[in-house]
Amino acid sequence: MDAHLPPGLDRLSLNQYTTNRWSVREAAEGCARAGLRWIGLWRDKVEAQGLEESARICRDLELGVSGLCRGGMFPAVSAEERARRIEDNLRAIDECRALGSDTLVLVCGGLSGCSVEDARRWVEEGIGAIAPYAAANNIRLGIEPLHPMFGADRSVINTLGQALDIAERSGTPGVGVVIDVYHVWWDPALHSQIVRAGARIFGFHVDDWIVPPPDILLGRGMMGDGVIDIRRIRLAVEAAGYGGPIECEIFNRDIWEMDGDEVIRRMIERYLKHC
Amino acid sequence: MDAHLPPGLDRLSLNQYTTNRWSVREAAEGCARAGLRWIGLWRDKVEAQGLEESARICRDLELGVSGLCRGGMFPAVSAEERARRIEDNLRAIDECRALGSDTLVLVCGGLSGCSVEDARRWVEEGIGAIAPYAAANNIRLGIEPLHPMFGADRSVINTLGQALDIAERSGTPGVGVVIDVYHVWWDPALHSQIVRAGARIFGFHVDDWIVPPPDILLGRGMMGDGVIDIRRIRLAVEAAGYGGPIECEIFNRDIWEMDGDEVIRRMIERYLKHC
Repeated sequence: MDAHLPPGLDRLSLNQYTTNRWSVREAAEGCARAGLRWIGLWRDKVEAQGLEESARICRDLELGVSGLCRGGMFPAVSAEERARRIEDNLRAIDECRALGSDTLVLVCGGLSGCSVEDARRWVEEGIGAIAPYAAANNIRLGIEPLHPMFGADRSVINTLGQALDIAERSGTPGVGVVIDVYHVWWDPALHSQIVRAGARIFGFHVDDWIVPPPDILLGRGMMGDGVIDIRRIRLAVEAAGYGGPIECEIFNRDIWEMDGDEVIRRMIERYLKHC
Repeated sequence: MDAHLPPGLDRLSLNQYTTNRWSVREAAEGCARAGLRWIGLWRDKVEAQGLEESARICRDLELGVSGLCRGGMFPAVSAEERARRIEDNLRAIDECRALGSDTLVLVCGGLSGCSVEDARRWVEEGIGAIAPYAAANNIRLGIEPLHPMFGADRSVINTLGQALDIAERSGTPGVGVVIDVYHVWWDPALHSQIVRAGARIFGFHVDDWIVPPPDILLGRGMMGDGVIDIRRIRLAVEAAGYGGPIECEIFNRDIWEMDGDEVIRRMIERYLKHC
């Protein structure tokens, strides 16, 4: 295989938030119609569809679940609230298992009234608290570093290096990272940290950085609409050993208003051209 | 002096973009009315007022110019364009000298059609090209790392560590950094890099990170309106040896619509409370 060729379509996964208006059933059927093999699910939509039913839909359509979004959100001022969040992450691990997914994606949580140092401590404590249960259930915990512009409200883990520090200190191979090109493309340490990550890369997400960004939360672009050299990052991630699903996750108001089948058609075209 | 007390008002500087609707004369007179000793100027407004006249206004009002914004913007695809930008930076050094400011603030420039690696190379080459002229004119070059959300369109230099790498490799003590809390607060390496920066800290800017940010470019907050522990960063910068002006630079549509004297009044109040 020439590594510079696009990755096979058998690796492409639709993260269901890319077709936000669709239910689990609609998204799964859309994937099946397009011949995709993978889907990335979100807990809120799984809950709306029903956990067992969501699992059955994916099984019946022979779709693998590339990951479940999202665990995390660990920081909180009170110990009671932090315990509640840890408990919620244990339930997310149960849901992963029920869905047949091996990876829980962690969006670690913002400041929530804490100092940035405290918030980072609560993240690490939270991951430490759930790691044994995850390992016992064969679920991998994938820390997704979020772009620093989400550092206050969504995640205080903002670089791949920082996520790997936590993963390595966890002392278990079951804690690793999910790399989304949108969040990490700017990082001067990106390529050295991808090498460092090696077998701890549990997921790879693609999308693009539009210039200038049309919106902070809902301004992500379809691959090819922005400035990220996605293929270069994909090749680096593969050189580091990752060969799993490549998930397309796009939060974008305009794309959310498009017909879901058209979104998938465009996603496939752009994936082959830019990933 | 108890370091935990607010810094003296004699160190507060109004960056004139905080009162964006004011000319150089209006901003300088506003500073003088409020008893301030420093002002930070922008080249576009200096040009509109006239360079010699701007210098005279500040001199007559006994205002020091804490820095001139902005040099930089080095990356470009063509060698001719890069040379033109270097030439423009040499003129900015002349303007610094004419204004009696010892620091040119560098916003290094975005991708401008280049890869991120190339863009970073052009930044370093550009700084190398202007450093001798800056040194000969006793002007310091302060690289301002910009938040990664500006990594594509404004500056490919996005962390303090990256800015210091360039400063150290320049081989001259006249290349250093300007630290704006808005751009760096999220960085897990912030405090270790402030220690590393030491005598290369040429400026310190204050403002705040509102949650969630109301706008990408124009959503900066007045000190106290956001989540940054400004005082902690100020103390770290001072512990590293910086004792110069503290410049308040706020790009915010709502603040720009306020009366300038009221902006200064509020800036002073917040400075004493939060810096």
